[in-house]
Amino acid sequence: MAIYRQDLSRAYSRTARFRSVTPLVRVPFLEERWKCQLYVKCDQFQEIGAFKIRGAANFALQLSDEERKKGLVTHSSGNHAQAVAFMAKQLGVKAFIVMPDNSNRVKIGNAEKWGAEISLCAPTIEARLAAAERLAETTGGRIIPPFDHPWIVAGQATCAMEVFSEWNDVDVLVAPLGGGGLLAGSALAAKHFSNRTKIIGAEPEQAQDGYLGFTSGVREERVTANTVADGLRTTVGVTPFQIIKDEVQDVWLAPEDRIVPWMYTMWKETKLLMEPSSAVPFAAMEEHQEKLRGKKVVVIITGGNVDLAHLPVFST
Amino acid sequence: MAIYRQDLSRAYSRTARFRSVTPLVRVPFLEERWKCQLYVKCDQFQEIGAFKIRGAANFALQLSDEERKKGLVTHSSGNHAQAVAFMAKQLGVKAFIVMPDNSNRVKIGNAEKWGAEISLCAPTIEARLAAAERLAETTGGRIIPPFDHPWIVAGQATCAMEVFSEWNDVDVLVAPLGGGGLLAGSALAAKHFSNRTKIIGAEPEQAQDGYLGFTSGVREERVTANTVADGLRTTVGVTPFQIIKDEVQDVWLAPEDRIVPWMYTMWKETKLLMEPSSAVPFAAMEEHQEKLRGKKVVVIITGGNVDLAHLPVFST
Repeated sequence: MAIYRQDLSRAYSRTARFRSVTPLVRVPFLEERWKCQLYVKCDQFQEIGAFKIRGAANFALQLSDEERKKGLVTHSSGNHAQAVAFMAKQLGVKAFIVMPDNSNRVKIGNAEKWGAEISLCAPTIEARLAAAERLAETTGGRIIPPFDHPWIVAGQATCAMEVFSEWNDVDVLVAPLGGGGLLAGSALAAKHFSNRTKIIGAEPEQAQDGYLGFTSGVREERVTANTVADGLRTTVGVTPFQIIKDEVQDVWLAPEDRIVPWMYTMWKETKLLMEPSSAVPFAAMEEHQEKLRGKKVVVIITGGNVDLAHLPVFST
Repeated sequence: MAIYRQDLSRAYSRTARFRSVTPLVRVPFLEERWKCQLYVKCDQFQEIGAFKIRGAANFALQLSDEERKKGLVTHSSGNHAQAVAFMAKQLGVKAFIVMPDNSNRVKIGNAEKWGAEISLCAPTIEARLAAAERLAETTGGRIIPPFDHPWIVAGQATCAMEVFSEWNDVDVLVAPLGGGGLLAGSALAAKHFSNRTKIIGAEPEQAQDGYLGFTSGVREERVTANTVADGLRTTVGVTPFQIIKDEVQDVWLAPEDRIVPWMYTMWKETKLLMEPSSAVPFAAMEEHQEKLRGKKVVVIITGGNVDLAHLPVFST
């Protein structure tokens, strides 16, 4: 299922009421450090604290009334669960969400806050899928996938589209790479709405399936993720992978032990809260800083849902 | 020394190059909670991470070249030290700063970052004043007071002036009350640039000299401050007190044990980092929420210089 320019344009107008157009904020200390112009796109300011609302909204809004009435179903340990719960609340329907029983309390609490019905399952992908399938069967609700679907990719594209509509002159846009929905969407947005922006994915060294697949040209499924960046532990999906392979300029790795220090450095210097996954681009960019020199750079901050009661140990 | 409308206007243009016009950000969860319209004025986004640059800039820029060349002197345990250090760097002169030897490492480090010469002294106000006087004598530099001076008050007024130039329809503006520079400046800004905004001060219960003085009409100097809000431990200055007494609508107290929980609630809900002093208005507003109902409200976020290595214990 190809994703056309018009799929992106329609996602942009379709989702307008449910996403915020988040600000681009200049970061002087990074401009000085890397000798470039640098802005961050603050998607942690979405009402659910993360960009995931974009794809979930674009998906849920394309269901028929009939389908939608039966409820929205998904499985997720994180921000996608919140996005689906939020959309269900907005649409006045039920959300049924499977979460692994080792998910953090904050993320479970957030999904409950929007009124979702949570079922816990064993923390394996098989258990999650099986539980979601069962839920979908018993409720008749549609499963909203977290990233591996053209509607989700087109929804996530609205983030970079907002960037380009505000700043049409971006040389490099960096986004974290987990399941690949945001990175693939950003690449399509650049292809259709900016003919000069290079798209870079940033991935934790300890979850480098995307990097390996991008390098070899073959999607890699056998990587065990072991990273503090809890939003980026998933394997890149089939649909995003095809797009990333063709449209993304490069994938950069973040040294695992630099992710948490970069998170706190960004908090300290910008006063913007971000979660570990959102620090991954900065840790990766530090390793590739010579490629940023003199460039106009945007980094997408994907979310700010940190568990403040269990913060990782401070170090810089 | 009276402060006229033209002192504010001139402070506004004089300081323009050194302050950022910080954003007003809407806070939906508080709007729902208190049934009002509510924006925060994000002065933690100033380059020094706090509003204090406004007053320090307005003071330093009114010195003669002769005076200025000898350096800027001050005593401070916190954000004012950074503001003076930053201004000295901008003006290409030296900064000599006395800091109590129990100041937190982050605040000392920040002042050093801008190139200031730091002298540590015993943590009493007498030791601080004596050390600053000595420094001023030996260097010939001018002491920049942290709050008790008309030039400082006029400089701090630029914060509310920015608010009114963006939103001319504010019913209530709430600012923390420590030394009183910001609150007095905000009151003068409202008097001259908005004829309908009521100004409210928010003070920690454990540093309530401002509240007692406002209530009795006589400045109160005998209160021992014992609050987590380290920016608000000072006694209200003579110049600010006169203005606050006449021009401020009310002073509200924040229960001490609600300050830290409110800080984390604000982090969690808004993804904006703020220091304990900046959480004081929210803890106070919760106690007076019936007065906010239906109103258009702005709260000044004064700073975001938290010590991430020594965060207060999380609780909500």
